[in-house]
Amino acid sequence: MDPSPLTVVPLSEQYDRVRQQTLNLCRPLQTADYELQAAEFTSPAKWHLAHTSWFFETFLLKPNLKGYQEFHPQFGHLFNSYYNGIGQPYPRAKRGLLSRPSLDDVLNYRHHVDQQMSLLMADESLQPLIELGLNHEQQHQELLLTDLLYCWSVNPMQPVYQALPSPVANTESPINDWLSFDGGIYRIGHKASNGFAFDNEGPRHDVLLQDFSLAKRLVTNREYLEFINAGGYQQPEFWLSDGWAWVQREGIVAPLYWWSEEQKPEQEWQQFSLNGQRAIELDAPVTHVSFFEADAYARWAGARLATEAEWEISARQADAAQGHFADAGRFSPRPVGCSEVTQNNGLQQQFGDCWEWTASPYQPYPGYVPAAGAVGEYNGKFMCNQMVLRGGSCVTPAGHVRPTYRNFFYPHERWQFTGIRLAR
Amino acid sequence: MDPSPLTVVPLSEQYDRVRQQTLNLCRPLQTADYELQAAEFTSPAKWHLAHTSWFFETFLLKPNLKGYQEFHPQFGHLFNSYYNGIGQPYPRAKRGLLSRPSLDDVLNYRHHVDQQMSLLMADESLQPLIELGLNHEQQHQELLLTDLLYCWSVNPMQPVYQALPSPVANTESPINDWLSFDGGIYRIGHKASNGFAFDNEGPRHDVLLQDFSLAKRLVTNREYLEFINAGGYQQPEFWLSDGWAWVQREGIVAPLYWWSEEQKPEQEWQQFSLNGQRAIELDAPVTHVSFFEADAYARWAGARLATEAEWEISARQADAAQGHFADAGRFSPRPVGCSEVTQNNGLQQQFGDCWEWTASPYQPYPGYVPAAGAVGEYNGKFMCNQMVLRGGSCVTPAGHVRPTYRNFFYPHERWQFTGIRLAR
Amino acid sequence: MDPSPLTVVPLSEQYDRVRQQTLNLCRPLQTADYELQAAEFTSPAKWHLAHTSWFFETFLLKPNLKGYQEFHPQFGHLFNSYYNGIGQPYPRAKRGLLSRPSLDDVLNYRHHVDQQMSLLMADESLQPLIELGLNHEQQHQELLLTDLLYCWSVNPMQPVYQALPSPVANTESPINDWLSFDGGIYRIGHKASNGFAFDNEGPRHDVLLQDFSLAKRLVTNREYLEFINAGGYQQPEFWLSDGWAWVQREGIVAPLYWWSEEQKPEQEWQQFSLNGQRAIELDAPVTHVSFFEADAYARWAGARLATEAEWEISARQADAAQGHFADAGRFSPRPVGCSEVTQNNGLQQQFGDCWEWTASPYQPYPGYVPAAGAVGEYNGKFMCNQMVLRGGSCVTPAGHVRPTYRNFFYPHERWQFTGIRLAR
Amino acid sequence: MDPSPLTVVPLSEQYDRVRQQTLNLCRPLQTADYELQAAEFTSPAKWHLAHTSWFFETFLLKPNLKGYQEFHPQFGHLFNSYYNGIGQPYPRAKRGLLSRPSLDDVLNYRHHVDQQMSLLMADESLQPLIELGLNHEQQHQELLLTDLLYCWSVNPMQPVYQALPSPVANTESPINDWLSFDGGIYRIGHKASNGFAFDNEGPRHDVLLQDFSLAKRLVTNREYLEFINAGGYQQPEFWLSDGWAWVQREGIVAPLYWWSEEQKPEQEWQQFSLNGQRAIELDAPVTHVSFFEADAYARWAGARLATEAEWEISARQADAAQGHFADAGRFSPRPVGCSEVTQNNGLQQQFGDCWEWTASPYQPYPGYVPAAGAVGEYNGKFMCNQMVLRGGSCVTPAGHVRPTYRNFFYPHERWQFTGIRLAR
Repeated sequence: MDPSPLTVVPLSEQYDRVRQQTLNLCRPLQTADYELQAAEFTSPAKWHLAHTSWFFETFLLKPNLKGYQEFHPQFGHLFNSYYNGIGQPYPRAKRGLLSRPSLDDVLNYRHHVDQQMSLLMADESLQPLIELGLNHEQQHQELLLTDLLYCWSVNPMQPVYQALPSPVANTESPINDWLSFDGGIYRIGHKASNGFAFDNEGPRHDVLLQDFSLAKRLVTNREYLEFINAGGYQQPEFWLSDGWAWVQREGIVAPLYWWSEEQKPEQEWQQFSLNGQRAIELDAPVTHVSFFEADAYARWAGARLATEAEWEISARQADAAQGHFADAGRFSPRPVGCSEVTQNNGLQQQFGDCWEWTASPYQPYPGYVPAAGAVGEYNGKFMCNQMVLRGGSCVTPAGHVRPTYRNFFYPHERWQFTGIRLAR
Repeated sequence: MDPSPLTVVPLSEQYDRVRQQTLNLCRPLQTADYELQAAEFTSPAKWHLAHTSWFFETFLLKPNLKGYQEFHPQFGHLFNSYYNGIGQPYPRAKRGLLSRPSLDDVLNYRHHVDQQMSLLMADESLQPLIELGLNHEQQHQELLLTDLLYCWSVNPMQPVYQALPSPVANTESPINDWLSFDGGIYRIGHKASNGFAFDNEGPRHDVLLQDFSLAKRLVTNREYLEFINAGGYQQPEFWLSDGWAWVQREGIVAPLYWWSEEQKPEQEWQQFSLNGQRAIELDAPVTHVSFFEADAYARWAGARLATEAEWEISARQADAAQGHFADAGRFSPRPVGCSEVTQNNGLQQQFGDCWEWTASPYQPYPGYVPAAGAVGEYNGKFMCNQMVLRGGSCVTPAGHVRPTYRNFFYPHERWQFTGIRLAR
Repeated sequence: MDPSPLTVVPLSEQYDRVRQQTLNLCRPLQTADYELQAAEFTSPAKWHLAHTSWFFETFLLKPNLKGYQEFHPQFGHLFNSYYNGIGQPYPRAKRGLLSRPSLDDVLNYRHHVDQQMSLLMADESLQPLIELGLNHEQQHQELLLTDLLYCWSVNPMQPVYQALPSPVANTESPINDWLSFDGGIYRIGHKASNGFAFDNEGPRHDVLLQDFSLAKRLVTNREYLEFINAGGYQQPEFWLSDGWAWVQREGIVAPLYWWSEEQKPEQEWQQFSLNGQRAIELDAPVTHVSFFEADAYARWAGARLATEAEWEISARQADAAQGHFADAGRFSPRPVGCSEVTQNNGLQQQFGDCWEWTASPYQPYPGYVPAAGAVGEYNGKFMCNQMVLRGGSCVTPAGHVRPTYRNFFYPHERWQFTGIRLAR
Repeated sequence: MDPSPLTVVPLSEQYDRVRQQTLNLCRPLQTADYELQAAEFTSPAKWHLAHTSWFFETFLLKPNLKGYQEFHPQFGHLFNSYYNGIGQPYPRAKRGLLSRPSLDDVLNYRHHVDQQMSLLMADESLQPLIELGLNHEQQHQELLLTDLLYCWSVNPMQPVYQALPSPVANTESPINDWLSFDGGIYRIGHKASNGFAFDNEGPRHDVLLQDFSLAKRLVTNREYLEFINAGGYQQPEFWLSDGWAWVQREGIVAPLYWWSEEQKPEQEWQQFSLNGQRAIELDAPVTHVSFFEADAYARWAGARLATEAEWEISARQADAAQGHFADAGRFSPRPVGCSEVTQNNGLQQQFGDCWEWTASPYQPYPGYVPAAGAVGEYNGKFMCNQMVLRGGSCVTPAGHVRPTYRNFFYPHERWQFTGIRLAR
């Protein structure tokens, strides 16, 4: 990986691009759309706009800009997500009730923060924290879209966002071939000298793996329909105990956003998306499945999910071979093109289609120590009960992916673009 | 108040006034405020704007206007409140998630309905149903304000509506005198020839009452504070069993919207209102209390609540003496002045301050039969588990009160302007 | 039935008979059966045995027997049902977890209380309170059986109690005739000089009734099946709003304890009872229906439920005609014979088959004042959200019925033997 | 490890000893104690007695004993725990409602199964499955005691079981020294030729570890009190996010079974145990803590929890050095002596005091494949959302421990004897 092209984009320009991109993503929204919170796990777009600014105000401006005046005395409370070290956050479940401050107030807040942040750009010691703020904002760009999708999905009016990237059918691989990897000792995790990464990606360390194979491409809707039609959701033998309880309790019979008039045969299934309602695209990767579903599908298919170490090894090999992730587009202000990384001879669809559920619980790497202070709450305190996902999705911002990236969600969650790659 | 000019107001003008008044009430709102639903029992202002139009479209335009084209195929579903005869309503708890249709769409819907309704105004046979629609809209005008108050109360930004009427201190009555009434057979309920009334106000019928006395004015905040300071919320002997369970489960220690930094002595209590945060006004009527609290206060004070028949007798006597409510229909398009009806020699604060909890469960009068069809669901099906309130509040529209009016809420509810009048 | 010999039964003998009858009812139980609590609203038989003794210990022995030593320091807490004036009761939902004290301990407690109580029998001033304790125990005798039925109903082993009375088919009345009553002023409620009654049965007072008719007999299973088969549970127009929400939420399709393999036609329905599993007896009164179901059935049948005043008038007329209930107190120690009171020319099945849901919310009669002290919590604090039932059921103890008796349950409850009599 | 002594106890004798031991453990129970289920995660003793017999009937007798007649047609349903391959189990939450079958019926069921099982003892091919059944029964012996403890803890009568082993104070180690281990590649997991193990203990495989140190002894009550008194339960920085939510939601302020009148200083804390109520023993290991508490304590103490591989390496080294686990007492029918394995030069309290929470989520070992058929549901389907515990507790049956044993519970659970060993 050659990081040099990155240096041609100065940090202040990266800042402007990322901040502007958040606003760009909101363009198709009507005023009321900014307020939506259909479930506690989603946040309104307006809240995302404010919280990403709060991050810069809280961790950069307040501690480092002399004489800084906070924009509003309540905002420190209202737009704190989960940093107990900063104070008691406003209740998450009530974010959709904040009709005030208005959208204009929040846009002014952003403008104020941006102006003040320009005074800190020259301070090299702050660069890591500013980069963290920008990567944080990119994470919220993805959430802004997936939250919107969830909120709109309960509206019978079926709002349409615009022509957005979706997981893309891989037309060259009707059969899902396997790629084999030798066991042995591998080094995984982020190398400290190698540009930005979240703290949970390190320390770099050795792991011992047995021989393994990964499927070249993601499981398709067509393949997942076979599982449905074979009664996969009705047979407990394919499911983890907690997964079976979830399926029974919630009445799950298909991926999220799938519906059919009367649960008829496969061609009848429809899918709600940000591009509107449409028939299932059979050769596209299945998405919006939970870990429980991914795991059950894999068991039904006589396979398993990859561990995160296996996944990273496979991605690093491709990376080394093809020099990906070095492009200056890392902070490109457009949504990532789908299938950003497609190796003809290696794994396909590894970045830019779906986050891939792994078999690995989200745990600290050996020797992991979170940062001091409240910013140390960013990642470490979530290392329990969640599963690691690797790769990146069709709504992950361009440049916001790398082989060491560790995403994580609870095993029943599926409002992200989450898919399945088989291993064995 | 001279009601006579009102009687010459033609129905079409009444229609215009009432419909316009709903819009007037929304003027202080920002766009995002229209979307708020902080609890299942509240509805967004935008939904109120649409639902009141839906009522005219559903019960007047569709059955009676030849060739009428519905405004939007989804609106019949989205803005149906609870009329199962019309079809399965959109889930009540999700009204706040309808960012689409937009506010502009809903205002266009109102305009469309108003234009089409003008074609039906000349049909005398429809007059009762149109009057029902207007009274329905007036009920939602009150809800629009009380729902907004509730939704804003969870926002630390403390939005302010404007100078709104509030329950008003009665400065002439430091002592709460009693007015006595003789027992006997009285006729209560709405007289069919006497203008508009909801179906639940009839049939007119005789009741047999024992001698009773009613307090001349409502219980004040000062008096209610004595109850609080005497430990009223901590002593089960004053409470109904279900009320005590509610107090314990919800941690209730004061009326809704009251709060104090550390629950200090009385002068420290603050109250959130549509006029903003302010100190408790000691001589104003206590409001936002549940039936359970009203009942417990009365028991603590050695009294009881009035039955609805007792209340109506007292109001009718004042009515007869002073000529009020004689007009067939007053549709003044401004919020009611507080204390609309104040008899020097009779009961005070009976209309226009607080709805008064009675001791009467909401039940059908003898011989009550709801209207045929879905419109019969308006009142009758709620005649279980709720308590009758009489009078009217400071946010009840002018003219929308009368001695026979039967309002009803569950005994734990208190987001309306609800107060206490003692009886014995 | 000749009540006259009963009047000579001295109080101490009444005491012995009632206390013994509670033990008799437990004879068919195995040790583990005494511990069952399948829902918060039921109590274990062992708890009933202890609580009824607690009542005498708390309200008679402790205040009145000089030098009385309580049997166990924890029992005052463990076996307090809901008397906050006595102290914080042990949590109701956990009564089934009290494996200690053992059944033997509780039987010893009963014996201890009985011995001590014998020392108070001569004190005439205590007679009303002792009578209250005995009537209290009789109420728990009925609950002991209905609670047991509920608890056993969740056990696939289908335990059988013994040949118990059930609601009995009225073979003479295939058609449900009506009996008419004139309107007018009637006096209802318990006459103070007329023997024991609960405080909620008074004060005696006048009511004004319109003309009404009551069905001669109770609604049968055959008739109720017509309602089911006509889709009664699927059509919201027959249901109160709260009832419809209950039916939907709980998936109710038939009376409690009814079940069928696949909800086939009527002849397939089975009913679980204390006598075991059996086919529905078509001509027996329908029982184990909620108020919501009774009300919906009545509306479907073009009728309504009686008010409690109408019911009492009808029962008193029969009473006056036939000399029933004239005795001051009957404490026959055997289960009531079914259909205790059957007037050939009057209403049938009014006592001894099913408690009859009335249309009357449970409210205090005019002038009602509960007793001073904790014993005043017996009835008064429940006068909210519940409906009055009249009559008595097949498991109500003999003698524990009278025309003024006011039973009360929440409108969704149906684990008592509750049935339907139509009115119009 | 020399397994030869084991061979001196024939399988049929092992069977008799283990089966008898379950009955022995029940001796202090009164009849009603057998029925208790205070929470869904506990089961009644009677149910444990039946379920352990069901295991033999279902997996041994029915498939292998020609002409076997099941004891009762309902028992296959009632006493199935979670084997969906056998059929829909009776709802777990309602096990405490099965007053029938009676305790005598269940004891007869045990006797019947034992008699029939004797006919299968000579079949060597069944030996692994019989051993599984015996180890299964030993797991339920421990649960029987921990479930009973939980159920009795809600009873103000404070029942006492008898003098039972408890975690024992380690009087020689006032300071908690560290024992260091070198990193490297280690082989962990059960060796197939090495006697019985559960399937989740294999396959044996290599792991790569970094250098690590383990505390020689468990954290004591005295040390844990310092954490409490330092405000550990009030400071979110020590807690995982899910742990902090649990502490807040449940109001957790101390280990399970600890209580104090007013949460006064340390000497006031009491602990409920099977030996009765008593003051906290300061030098005994803290127990009945959740993973969340163990993890927060470790973070507060500047340490961490061990991974399960680290733990197993440390135990195996001791094992190899001292020849433990080879003794014939493996199926000794008495409760394990506390601190069964105490190495003077190694780790102390590793077996026989408390199960030790590890930092390892419960996951399959590489290459793990569950057994075919319903018995494959034994372990594998629980490999999600749970954490591994290692060691064994004071109520683990003698012989039922080994270095490769993997116990597992949800991170909030703490009704087992669970303790804390620090690592770094």
